[in-house]
Amino acid sequence: MTKEKTILSGIQPSGKLHIGNYFGAMRQHIRMQEEGDAFYFLANYHSLTSVSDGKRLKEYTLDVVLDYLALGLDPEKCTFFAQSDVPQTTELAWILGCHTPVSLMEKGVAYKDKVANGLNPNIGLFTYPVLQAADILIYHSHLVPVGEDQKQNIEIARDLAGKLNRAYDRELLIIPEEYIVKSVATVPGIDGRKMSKSYNNTINIFDEGKVLKKKVMSIQTDSTALEDPKDPDTCNVFALIRLFADDDTREEIAGRYRAGGYGYGHAKKELLGLIEGYFAEARDRRKKLTENMDYVIDVLREGGIKARERAESVMEPIRETTGLFRSFEM
Amino acid sequence: MTKEKTILSGIQPSGKLHIGNYFGAMRQHIRMQEEGDAFYFLANYHSLTSVSDGKRLKEYTLDVVLDYLALGLDPEKCTFFAQSDVPQTTELAWILGCHTPVSLMEKGVAYKDKVANGLNPNIGLFTYPVLQAADILIYHSHLVPVGEDQKQNIEIARDLAGKLNRAYDRELLIIPEEYIVKSVATVPGIDGRKMSKSYNNTINIFDEGKVLKKKVMSIQTDSTALEDPKDPDTCNVFALIRLFADDDTREEIAGRYRAGGYGYGHAKKELLGLIEGYFAEARDRRKKLTENMDYVIDVLREGGIKARERAESVMEPIRETTGLFRSFEM
Repeated sequence: MTKEKTILSGIQPSGKLHIGNYFGAMRQHIRMQEEGDAFYFLANYHSLTSVSDGKRLKEYTLDVVLDYLALGLDPEKCTFFAQSDVPQTTELAWILGCHTPVSLMEKGVAYKDKVANGLNPNIGLFTYPVLQAADILIYHSHLVPVGEDQKQNIEIARDLAGKLNRAYDRELLIIPEEYIVKSVATVPGIDGRKMSKSYNNTINIFDEGKVLKKKVMSIQTDSTALEDPKDPDTCNVFALIRLFADDDTREEIAGRYRAGGYGYGHAKKELLGLIEGYFAEARDRRKKLTENMDYVIDVLREGGIKARERAESVMEPIRETTGLFRSFEM
Repeated sequence: MTKEKTILSGIQPSGKLHIGNYFGAMRQHIRMQEEGDAFYFLANYHSLTSVSDGKRLKEYTLDVVLDYLALGLDPEKCTFFAQSDVPQTTELAWILGCHTPVSLMEKGVAYKDKVANGLNPNIGLFTYPVLQAADILIYHSHLVPVGEDQKQNIEIARDLAGKLNRAYDRELLIIPEEYIVKSVATVPGIDGRKMSKSYNNTINIFDEGKVLKKKVMSIQTDSTALEDPKDPDTCNVFALIRLFADDDTREEIAGRYRAGGYGYGHAKKELLGLIEGYFAEARDRRKKLTENMDYVIDVLREGGIKARERAESVMEPIRETTGLFRSFEM
């Protein structure tokens, strides 16, 4: 991959980020800032489909910014911004919507789930794949890192880009490609199910002190006696240790599991130490950042300017070609 | 009505305007510029639901601007602008969509018509009542002049404004009122059906010379003989004469109809003269305007600036309240 490829990813601000988010996506985002021209945005328009508390949305948004910056996202190396700083996105979404069959949206997974659960979904939720397509297409993105479960949405973006290009017989939009992120082993929550905010089983990245200790100590394990040998590969605690430990430490702990005389309480203490060590630097950086919120806002402002410029350069020929009058420059 | 009330109306640029448009809406628009703080916009985002020829859309748009200015719309008295100059509209549409039940859109008349005709409608058409609501609400409009057939869309705008206000417990949007324009008698086309572009039976406002003559001469009439008395009230030609003639002329022509010895050919010549006279000044003004397109573009630019300022003043507290980050001023 060269720096010439534009990479695009969005993060929906909807609460504290947890270690499942970190190993599932954030770590890859931070790594990929070295690999391409990365655009990462806070998907706050999308959040409105479920959050209608403005104060909380603002908090969530700034929390995500702080988390990413603390963990090593470097605004010099990538473009990091709020979706709402690029209003062109909703404009492109409207234009794409004029080429989106209603039937295509009815196949949307998130929408079908809601309907299956008897809910009356809103138009935001119904049409969010169109806005998501606009998010991707408006920066002429080449690569969109996604998990297996999000392939459908990239397909829709590719489909809509093709439809617009064909309708006007001109390459107005670049057809993006998915970039399947090889997921690490699923990150288990403290109850052993997949870690997820909706299961209320998360360990947040920046949990610390008593809160962190309480969560780690409550990770579910089986009832094998202290003295008996244990299988690390079926243990929730070890599944987490695996993520945080280097190879040597991991093998050493696995050995103790198998040898017996090593209890889950010992393993949990080990894990606690590993987590604290792993995020120690980031935790310090985050504290310093919270004392310098002007800088944080500046990061978003700078990112917003760059993203808006790119978006405008893509929209300008689209307005020209579709015949939309625009008397001013953004 | 005082100048303090904001009046809002949109005109979809989709071809030459005809005398049905004039007596059905344009004349009222021009009159209402004296009666309130009128905002009139060219609904070009809406046009994209059906027009995918950019050159044609641009032509249609400028044609409508020329027509309105020629007919007496005064940009000093109202705000006349292109919808695409107010991108905040699509942003508000997204926010409103997050509070719009999908089921509400499924009831939309235009959408239901398409589905009934076996067409696969696009998302633009499906959600256009949401964009239309944004069009109205983003200027804090008080009054929306509409025909009886458009009452549903104002209801939706009122409904969505109420939903957003309640969701955030704050009067973010003004609930608009409909302002039913007492329609003049339906304007018949040259085949006697309602004049409509889709029936291909129109007389355009700025038709002239041979084209105009041919259309007027082909207006359908019955086969009453020249010498026989005729009923003006059942005659398509007279229905049009009624619109263009002053009271005295109208009564005089009606008398001739009833007296007999007055043929439809005579009536058509009379009508031709009346139409030519009625639009003579406007026709001259339109020609001058086409020689001064810089002025025409300037009108849109000025209108766009005013409209955008108003829209931004409405959106700013909405972004603040919903928690959307915005680092720049538009």
